Order: sequence, then C-alpha cells, then structure tokens
Amino acid sequence: MYKRKTILLALAFGACIIAYSQDIQVYPTNWFTGMQWNKVQLVVKSTHEGFSKEKPGIQYPGVQLVKTHQLENSKYLVLDLSIAPTAKPGMVTITFNDGNNKHSIQWPLNTRREGNGKRFAQGVTAKDFVYLLMPDRFSNGDTKNDRFADMRDTSCDRTQLLMRHGGDIQGVTQHLNYLKELGVTTVWMTPVVENDMPLEREPNGMLSGFHGYWFTDQYKIDKRYGGEAAYLQLSDALHARGMKLIQDAVYNHIGIKHWIVMDPPAKDWINQWPAYTGSNHRDEVVFDRYGSAKDKKQMLDGWFTPHLPDVNQRNPYVANFLIQYAIWATETFGIDGWRVDTYKYCDEAFLNRINDALLKEYPNLTVFGEVWSNTITGSAYFTRNNLQAPFKHNLQGVTDFPVNFAMLATLNQPFGWTEGVNKLYMTLAQDILYKDPSKNCIFLDNHDMDRFYSVAGEDMNRYKQGIVLLLTLRGIPQLYYGTEILMKNLKNSSDAMVRFDFPGGFPGDKENKFEASGRSEKENEAFNFVSTLAHYRQNSSALTIGHTMQYLPFANGVYVYFRYNTKQTIMCVLNTSDKEAAIDFDQFQERTRGFARGKDILTGQSYSNHFSVAAKGTMVLELQP
Amino acid sequence: MYKRKTILLALAFGACIIAYSQDIQVYPTNWFTGMQWNKVQLVVKSTHEGFSKEKPGIQYPGVQLVKTHQLENSKYLVLDLSIAPTAKPGMVTITFNDGNNKHSIQWPLNTRREGNGKRFAQGVTAKDFVYLLMPDRFSNGDTKNDRFADMRDTSCDRTQLLMRHGGDIQGVTQHLNYLKELGVTTVWMTPVVENDMPLEREPNGMLSGFHGYWFTDQYKIDKRYGGEAAYLQLSDALHARGMKLIQDAVYNHIGIKHWIVMDPPAKDWINQWPAYTGSNHRDEVVFDRYGSAKDKKQMLDGWFTPHLPDVNQRNPYVANFLIQYAIWATETFGIDGWRVDTYKYCDEAFLNRINDALLKEYPNLTVFGEVWSNTITGSAYFTRNNLQAPFKHNLQGVTDFPVNFAMLATLNQPFGWTEGVNKLYMTLAQDILYKDPSKNCIFLDNHDMDRFYSVAGEDMNRYKQGIVLLLTLRGIPQLYYGTEILMKNLKNSSDAMVRFDFPGGFPGDKENKFEASGRSEKENEAFNFVSTLAHYRQNSSALTIGHTMQYLPFANGVYVYFRYNTKQTIMCVLNTSDKEAAIDFDQFQERTRGFARGKDILTGQSYSNHFSVAAKGTMVLELQP
Repeated sequence: MYKRKTILLALAFGACIIAYSQDIQVYPTNWFTGMQWNKVQLVVKSTHEGFSKEKPGIQYPGVQLVKTHQLENSKYLVLDLSIAPTAKPGMVTITFNDGNNKHSIQWPLNTRREGNGKRFAQGVTAKDFVYLLMPDRFSNGDTKNDRFADMRDTSCDRTQLLMRHGGDIQGVTQHLNYLKELGVTTVWMTPVVENDMPLEREPNGMLSGFHGYWFTDQYKIDKRYGGEAAYLQLSDALHARGMKLIQDAVYNHIGIKHWIVMDPPAKDWINQWPAYTGSNHRDEVVFDRYGSAKDKKQMLDGWFTPHLPDVNQRNPYVANFLIQYAIWATETFGIDGWRVDTYKYCDEAFLNRINDALLKEYPNLTVFGEVWSNTITGSAYFTRNNLQAPFKHNLQGVTDFPVNFAMLATLNQPFGWTEGVNKLYMTLAQDILYKDPSKNCIFLDNHDMDRFYSVAGEDMNRYKQGIVLLLTLRGIPQLYYGTEILMKNLKNSSDAMVRFDFPGGFPGDKENKFEASGRSEKENEAFNFVSTLAHYRQNSSALTIGHTMQYLPFANGVYVYFRYNTKQTIMCVLNTSDKEAAIDFDQFQERTRGFARGKDILTGQSYSNHFSVAAKGTMVLELQP
Repeated sequence: MYKRKTILLALAFGACIIAYSQDIQVYPTNWFTGMQWNKVQLVVKSTHEGFSKEKPGIQYPGVQLVKTHQLENSKYLVLDLSIAPTAKPGMVTITFNDGNNKHSIQWPLNTRREGNGKRFAQGVTAKDFVYLLMPDRFSNGDTKNDRFADMRDTSCDRTQLLMRHGGDIQGVTQHLNYLKELGVTTVWMTPVVENDMPLEREPNGMLSGFHGYWFTDQYKIDKRYGGEAAYLQLSDALHARGMKLIQDAVYNHIGIKHWIVMDPPAKDWINQWPAYTGSNHRDEVVFDRYGSAKDKKQMLDGWFTPHLPDVNQRNPYVANFLIQYAIWATETFGIDGWRVDTYKYCDEAFLNRINDALLKEYPNLTVFGEVWSNTITGSAYFTRNNLQAPFKHNLQGVTDFPVNFAMLATLNQPFGWTEGVNKLYMTLAQDILYKDPSKNCIFLDNHDMDRFYSVAGEDMNRYKQGIVLLLTLRGIPQLYYGTEILMKNLKNSSDAMVRFDFPGGFPGDKENKFEASGRSEKENEAFNFVSTLAHYRQNSSALTIGHTMQYLPFANGVYVYFRYNTKQTIMCVLNTSDKEAAIDFDQFQERTRGFARGKDILTGQSYSNHFSVAAKGTMVLELQP
C-alpha cells in the first residue's frame, strides 16, 4: 500500500504532474521483472469519489497500459498492464488525469528474489517434517509489538484464552535451533497476514483474530507479529538452515473489516445473500451427482461466519487479485509451499487457475489444501485423483483427514473388522482414489482439533504408536506445536483449549520446555522419541520416498507394514492389542527375503527373524542381512 | 450327464461301434445351434483309467473336433469342438477308439430356446422388483421330492433349523400370484443346482446344504427342489406372467463332494494349499496398491470353508467349464439375470471373461455380483466404475452393501454429521465412483443378514421408511422373502435364524400368510404398504428410470429427495427425527417449480405446497400442478 501525499514529481509531457493529495493504494503493491505472470492487473483504490473518471497513463520502458476498467465504486480503477521481458526494475510512474491536472503515483517494478526456485519455492515433500504453530501462542520474541493503539484489537492478555498473547514471528525465528533439534524441516504458521479485526463475540467470550484467518489486507504482515521485516528475516533464517517455509492462504473468505468489505470495489466481490446465510460446510454437495444447485450454492457462497464475508472468486478481478497475491507473496517472502485454508468452499475453476498460475511460476512449489472431509471420496475429489469426475481438480494434495481419523482409530478403538487398526488398513487401501497420496499432508492433530496426547488418553504407548504412524506412513508429516512436549487438552467448546502457549516462549514463563532441562522426564521421553525418529527419517529414503506394503492386521490388532526401496527396507510393527504377539519374518517373505535381522531405530536393539512385540508395543526395524 | 450303457449304435466306417459299458459324462451335457459361443470345450469324464489314451472322433455335419487334450487324470479327455453356423440340431455321435474297439456316446446339439433374448435373458433393471427366497424355506409344493435315499443328506425335518424343510421350486411356482399381488416382477432363488452334500457340522448343530451354495454338479437341478422339469416349469410360468427369473451363480467354490473334487481332472482345478487355508475375506487386498501378494493370494485362493474347495478359474479348462455352464443354463432355463455369489473372491480376469461371454450371447442379460464390501471404494472397484484402477472390472452392478448399511443407519442411528440419514446422504453422494449405480441391487436384508423388521426394532414407522427407501432410491430393489409379512429375527450365531419357513407354504401349517385372511392386521398393513408402493412404482418412470436429486437433510433428520423426469416428479419425505417438521415447496424450488401440490401415493391424501410431516413420518408425493 502506498500513501503518497506530499512528494512532488518532476515535470513531464509539458504538464504539471503532482503527487496525489489523497490516499492511493495499489494492489499488487509492486511487481517483478522476468515473471511468467507478466500481465498484471492493478486494482487502484483511491479515497476520492469520481476517481474512476480520471484517465490513467503509464510511461515506462517495457510496461504498457493495455486496458482500463471502471468498477461500480467510482473510487476504483483497474489497470491491465503488460510487462515486457525486457522491462528493467525501477519505479513505474502511473499518471491519472482528471481533466485539469495530472496526478501520479510511483509503483515499483522490482528485481526478483535471489535464488528463484532454488533457495525458495523448493516444494515441501514427503522428505520433510512440518511443524504447525500459531505465532501468537508459540513465543513472544519482541514485546514491543504486542499491541498497537491504531489497530482495532488492542488485547494482549495471556490470562484470557481467547485474546492475543503477544507471540510473534521473531519468537519463531529465535527457536529455529529447537525445531532443528526436533528434526523439523519446515515451518507452517497459521496466517501472519494482517487481521485488523475487532474482538468478536464467541460463545465463550470475546475472541481475537490471534489465529490469523481474518485477513484485512493481504499485502501486510500483521505488525503484532513483527510485520514484513520479521517475516523476511524468518524466511531467510529458515533457508540459511536448509529449512523451509509454508504460508497459510485463505481464498474463501476475508475479515469483515477488510477494505474489500469496508469500501467494496463492486458488490459482487463478495457473495451476497438477502439475509445472512452460512455455508452448510458439506463437501458432498460439491461433487454429488444428485446434489441440488441450492445446496451447492450455499456450500460455496454461504459465509463461513457472520464476520467472515465469502469472497466471490468467479469475479475475474477478484480471481486476479488472489492469484497475483499468491505469486507476489511467494516471490516476496520466499515461500516454499502453500497450505490453502477452507479449500472445499472455494470456486472450483478458480482453484485450478490459481494453482496453475503458481505452478507455472514455480514448478517445484507445493500446494496442499485443507479439505476437511469425512470420506476418502471427498478428500480425493479435491485433489489430483483417479476419478473420472465431472470436474477434475489439480491440487497436489490435501490435509488428509481420513488418515487422521484412521490413525486415531488405530490407537483408540478395539480391534474389529472395520475398527481399530483395520480402519487404517482400509483407509490406506483406498489410496487408489488418489493420483499421488504421498503429496497429502498427514497429521495427528492441528489447531482445530483435540490435542493428540489427550486423544491418546495421555498414554505413552499410544502416543508413540501415533508418532510412528505419522513419521512412517506415506505423505508429508505435520506435527502440531507442543505435541512433542505432550501438550494436551480437548477442545470441548472452544478451539482456544488446544492453543495454549508454548511454555518458555513468553517473558516470565516459569518453565522453559524449549530446553531439555525444562522438560519433565516424560516430556523428554516424548521429545526424544519424536526427534530420534524424525532425524532417522531425514536420511531414510525408504521412510520418505520409498514404497509401502501393508499386511493384513492379525492377532487381534498387530499391524506390520513396510517402507522400502532398493536401498533400504524398514519394517514397522504396531501391536494395538493387549497381548504380546509373536512376529516371524516368514510371515512377510515378500519384504523380508534376504534379511536375517532387524535393528530397532528407536531403541538400537537388534532382533532376529523371530521375535515378539509387547502389548501396545511399537517397533521400527531397519532390516539387515 | 449321460449314462449310456446299453444302447447299440449302427455300424459306421466299417468298424463296430458299441456304446460304452462304462459311465461317460460330458460337460456341457449338450449345446445349441446358432450360438455365438460356437467353440465348445467338452470335458469327457469316464470311470475308466486310461480312457485318456483313447482316440476320439466326431462325424457330424458342421461339427468338427479341433483338438484333444489329456489331463493329469487319465479318466478324462477334453475335446475342443467347432460348431459351424450351418450345423443342424441332432445327436452328435462322439467315438472313442481304444485300439481295439470304437465306443460311442451321443451328445445332443439342440435347437435354441424359443424367443431368445426376448422372452428370456431380458435383463433385470431398476424397473423390476426382485424377490429373494430360499426354495427350501418358502413352500413345499411337492412332498414326494422331500428326500431321496440316494442322496447324501436325507434330512427333512422342519423342527430342525439347520436341516432341510422340504420346500421346492413347485412351491414357488404355486405362489406366483401371491408375488404378483405383492408387486414383485422377478424371482431370485438361492441356488437350485444339485447340492449332494452330507450334513456338515456347524457350531449350532448339523447344517444341511438347504441354502444351495454347495454345488456338486452344476448340470443338475437338485431333485429335492423338483429337478430340471420343475425349474423349466417355473421359468415358463414366470415368463407367461411377464415376470423374470434370476439364477444364483457360484464361481468361487464348489462342494467338497463335487465330482471335480471327488475325482479331480487335474490337481490344479482346485486351489491347493499345504494345509487348510481359509480366505481372509478382505476385498481390500484385491485393489490395495500397498497390498501383499500373500494376502491377495489368500483372499482369492483361500477356501471359503473346509467343505468348500476353492475353484481355480485361472485354469483355462475350468474357466471354459464355468463360462459354458453359465451360457448353457441361461439358454436351457431361460434366465433373465444372474446374481453371482462371492464375486470378490474370484479371479478377476476370469470374471471379466465370463461376463463378456454372457453379454456377447445375450446383450440384454443382467449380471450383478455379491460384493460384500464395507467401503464404497471396494463396492465400486468390482463393477463398472469411474476409477482409473489398475484392473477394470466389467460387472454391471453389485449387491449394494454400502447403501444397505446407510439405509439401516438412517432408520436406527440418531442424526449426526455422518450418522443417521446423513450416512445415506453421504453414501449416495459417493455414487460418483460408479459408472451406473442404477444397476446396483439394493436391499434391506438378505439370507445372510439380520432380518430387516428386527433391525428396524419392529417399529412400523421405521419399517415403512425402509420400504420407501428400497422402492424409491436408485437401483434394482430386492426384497427378502417374508419381509412383507414382518418375518423377524437376528442371526445371532446362526444364519438359520433368518431363514424360517414362510407360514402357509408347508403342509400342515396352521397359518397361511399367503392370504390376507391369514395375516394379522399389522402384517396386512405391511403387505399392503409394500404392494401399494411396488405397484405404483411399476408404472412410475420417475421412480424407476428417473433422475435423482437429494437435498441436504435438515431439521435434525428430515430428508427430502426427488425422483423425476420430464413426465413425473416424485417427492420423497422421510422425517427421521422425533419432531413434526414443516415442509415448504420453496425449499426445493429446482424440483417443485410449477407444482402446487402433492398427492401421497401411500395414503391418497393431497397436500398443498406447505405441509408438515409427522415425527418418523414418511411421504411419497406425486407432484401436481
């Protein structure tokens, strides 16, 4: 956003060009030379009614004004620019002639980020280990940015679960060594985009937008998180350590205080309803061959909540706005992957367009979508799949809820034909619906779910089985912050229950669980378990890019599966039953042939080809000749 | 099967041809002129060791012996015949020269059944209403065939649940008017093929093969059911009434007293194991991209039970044997459709071959397979589907277990996001996995499941909702005998609990529920409910071949869906909640536009466009302008 009120520019074309005395914002706030996306559509927003009648002009070598669009709101103009490959970086002067005067603004055409597609946009794959955290709740690295009087929500009170706690991006940057020690390769923060929203009334009290999903201006990093500078610093610090950055995108909705809502370019930038209509949240209506247009419209165009207006991605200006932002942010901040929030609520054609545009620009970039579906069919529908469906999505992968449900069932349900570990067995067997299930993000919990350690009944055996599943099954594993130190809680009535502060991340914390010395014995056991497996995994081609073979669970709940390739064979054994069970390599000859023993990478212990696994026991054996 | 011991034949070729003094069986027992399948492979079975050294010959215009095969067992010869389109019906003499004498047998080449593909092999479609019955348990039409001293199981004792009760095909034929009154169009009997098996020990006592799935000779209709004559009579009686016949096929296994097991042509006609190995019964291993060959082999080649050896359909002789039988039976008995038992246990390539051969011969024929799968993915995998799976099945439809589970959940589960009627909603939404889900056979129960009325808690409201779902959802509806008169029971430990005799079908029965006067008021209410809807359905293009539109369930369990086409719109309303609910045509404008009222075809009552549906109420409204 540019506010140029006082700068006087040089004379040009024999007319006096003066800088605007009004506020002008331009989106995108800048562009780059040498991009694939070189037809840039600028949304120019003024504070002045009648602005749309001004005649725009551009004089800059290689930059051409192709077309001008007026919108319903006369404060806006939309300019289609064409940027030639020959265009050089610099300040592009855009003039607006109101008949009497020419006013101007300066719009930067920047050099691209260094190391394009090598040092960023690298993609996040099954080789990685993603750590999902909420910056407000992880660590407060700079107490000076805790609150700002010029923002609508000035709360910062750690005694209030629903209010801001002061965590920030600096706090994350300060703990990268901790994450590295844990074996994490990639950081995914809930959104850091500006959420200049007031406190909202929730059933449990006043809720702050501390989670970040209430965007008010995509082109700003929330200053309470440290703003653009802190974000750039984190990105650089990650890349310097060989780590990666995932940004959390929201295309579906925006905060009700977003400028698009406060001063709408046109009514149809937001999906309008005669009376408030919430989404029905049912992914089925999107693909159901028997579905009604009414239900589908409510699903896609209904609002997420009353304070989150639903963005109309069918509006071509809106679509370009979102696409350009995604490219702009990837380039500006050096993003390696995108997680797209509320994916199933968005216009389908738009989703494919934005993914295509991102991939065209950054072929290695990863994009996975939050598809909270109760069915594998639904999950598969929204990604690249093996379905001949009327609409073919091009998303690389989804947040794999069916595998989450199945992993939790494995730990918590008694063994049955379709229950317990058989649910996991059956879920993975249905991977035939996906084109490439290894691109799905798998997880035991996240910021919207009961915390895994609580779901596992605070039982270390079940905890370890969950961690082993997370780090040995196909897909991109994602750990939710604090799971490694046994943070617990069920949501019950409020998400805030699973969003507690990381102990040690905040000034005055009595405990510091970032340090081994600050953790209890049990917490260290958990941390070390995750860390051991995660580090082993980093160098294991089998566990990351290897094939999978699963055997039918036997003995009332013993599950044996293999990750393997020509270099390595890993045998994972989960005994979900209450009895010790005998294991014999002969049962799994297809994979054990040529191996005489296995070394448990968790304990270092070696086993011959006949051994037993304890009740509720877990083993990850690297097979040896 | 032919036993020709004494017939002397005329001299031919200057050598003395005498009829065999030994038993010779030939499979198929005859063939037909003018068939697409005109390369017939005869399995010739003698009682004489060394028979395979005899030199066979055929002299018959248009019939050529193309090739002779010897098998492991020297009592067998396999003859490949080619039957020219010009061949005329008659007795084909097949000679066998043992070096000293020429022996001969007579093998009939018959005219095809009249009305090929018009009066039979018509196909069973969503326009039909199938009645599944067990002939031993439906009606004893001829007490003279209750037991035969020359069969291994001579039981016939109605006091014993697990033994034979004496029902037969004649009993079915005698009650076709009853079925017609009920609105049934198609009869599917559990198999009537010979089961000359001894009583088998089961957990609950000695079990007879009264269910028919223990074949000992495909080419014989069990004489305790009335044999070939009774079966032909039933077929003709059905067709004379415009009704249809489904035969129940079993390709997967045979009874351990089958001649293939008693005197094996070769060891590999049966899948052999070093020690008894049962199937693991898991369809997932067949399609799982991570599945082990070991588990898949056990699924496909493991035995169903110790007395049901697993047929090796990969053996080309076996495959031809099964294919030719299927064609032969269709032609001989005038079958309109096949239900294939234990479909998911059979060799996949074979399944496609046999289906192709049947369809090539009878383009309108229906074939649906019993695929007892817990997932829609599994169900869809085994039929024509919209999956890009490594193996593509060509089956028209399956017995739709997922829809069964979902219908029962609708009636019995409290309303939830994935429970109750939402389970049905979600299941139908996943029909995108099927190429044509209207070809699936849908059912509330069958001979292997708890009886529907009991599952519905003997609650007439739930019963009616189930019947409405059965007769208004997409697919071929199948009713299990007795459901119309509220026959009940849960299986608990024995299938026999859900296979009680139809009251009135047996001599000496005190009640006759084939007559309205023999039924209680409640039973008549049930019968009339089914009958009313079934008869309406027969003339309703919307309910049979119409489109479906389902709306998201609302008001804690009110489910409204439509069957419609250009001629008719039917609005089905199921209130699964405990509260009366208001319904307004405006909620469903896509389908109610142009209609002002609806007439309930169950009660005759008319409703305006605003009305209410009672708690647990059900309506099937034909919309009117």
